[in-house]
Amino acid sequence: MSTLLRIDTSIRADASVTRAIGDTLQSSWLAANPGGTVVRRDLAVDPIPTPAWSNAVAAAQTDEAQRTPTQRAALALAAAVADEVLAADLIVVGAPLYNYGVSAHLKTWIDLLLADARFAPGTAALTGRPLALVVARGGGYGPGTPREGWDYTTPYLMRIFAEVMGADVTLVDTELTLAEHNPAMEALRPLAAQRLADAHQRADEVGRELAKAAVTA
Amino acid sequence: MSTLLRIDTSIRADASVTRAIGDTLQSSWLAANPGGTVVRRDLAVDPIPTPAWSNAVAAAQTDEAQRTPTQRAALALAAAVADEVLAADLIVVGAPLYNYGVSAHLKTWIDLLLADARFAPGTAALTGRPLALVVARGGGYGPGTPREGWDYTTPYLMRIFAEVMGADVTLVDTELTLAEHNPAMEALRPLAAQRLADAHQRADEVGRELAKAAVTA
Repeated sequence: MSTLLRIDTSIRADASVTRAIGDTLQSSWLAANPGGTVVRRDLAVDPIPTPAWSNAVAAAQTDEAQRTPTQRAALALAAAVADEVLAADLIVVGAPLYNYGVSAHLKTWIDLLLADARFAPGTAALTGRPLALVVARGGGYGPGTPREGWDYTTPYLMRIFAEVMGADVTLVDTELTLAEHNPAMEALRPLAAQRLADAHQRADEVGRELAKAAVTA
Repeated sequence: MSTLLRIDTSIRADASVTRAIGDTLQSSWLAANPGGTVVRRDLAVDPIPTPAWSNAVAAAQTDEAQRTPTQRAALALAAAVADEVLAADLIVVGAPLYNYGVSAHLKTWIDLLLADARFAPGTAALTGRPLALVVARGGGYGPGTPREGWDYTTPYLMRIFAEVMGADVTLVDTELTLAEHNPAMEALRPLAAQRLADAHQRADEVGRELAKAAVTA
């Protein structure tokens, strides 16, 4: 028995690119691992309340007997988020680039997760655990483009998931996702379609590979 | 008459380093500009509710007559945040580094601000306006340190405030702020104290300079 945890953050209810790529990965993982379980936490639909993290940090710095009910609730939420992550054999995180940076919904979840004692500095709590990071960028950020170096989410999330948490991260990314909606990007639509197809193919491969790892582990 | 807008994000109720440096800047600005007004928005005390941004984005993509009450409220909040920024002659943003990244509270505010039509892509709405960015980092991130390159907030915020919004950004930063609390960093305390004193001195200078600019403008 193996568990896949999906963390989604796209604010697009329909037509979310990261959710669609995550669905492809999930389907191929389930096809190769039919007994697997999928757990979902959609941070766009049910965001972590902003004060939960600061309350959890304050709670951790307060003697247990002195903690307020709000602080206890925040620590319990941090523990629930951490339990969910630690119970997963594969974690799939959907992370669109928003205003060139990290989704605030996702950062709040990361902060809260790191507030749980099991994820304290130096623990590298996810060492050896596979994590697929699905990134979608609306524009083009490749070498030589005007927006080269403006993707402030992918390098940060790689650092957090791979180095701070120690996970074995596979990146599945695509870009130019706004081309189909933005008339000024019309000429880029064939390239955008190709990039999207490539990402789905990669997600399909990654899902199968990681299911095999789960079955043989 | 001149207005200074303070945006604070530190989750430390007492002993916030960025608030203390911001206070120094504010005091010297007021001393040199006694008729000035200070407006404060403390995002740690009163965070922007996480769904406001996605609701504002959805509202902007919906015909006015079709907007839900929730969408209208989110757009109104975006407008209030934008009004506040556009009414300021000087903006002071306190931005601690949290888990190597941008404060989620601050990112939510940035996202909401950029959802207002006056801050749409290409507007560079703060062109020529002074903004002091006060950054505090708990550890050391300088060249040659193990954490060199791990500050994912300063470069991002410089990009957003200076390039996307067009503000005239002055950085006032300090680091090693955790030295006084962390026994493992005890040997760094004299250096931390020096860095903090330097930041306060710089904040004092910046406050005076920008007050002079406000008076002569």
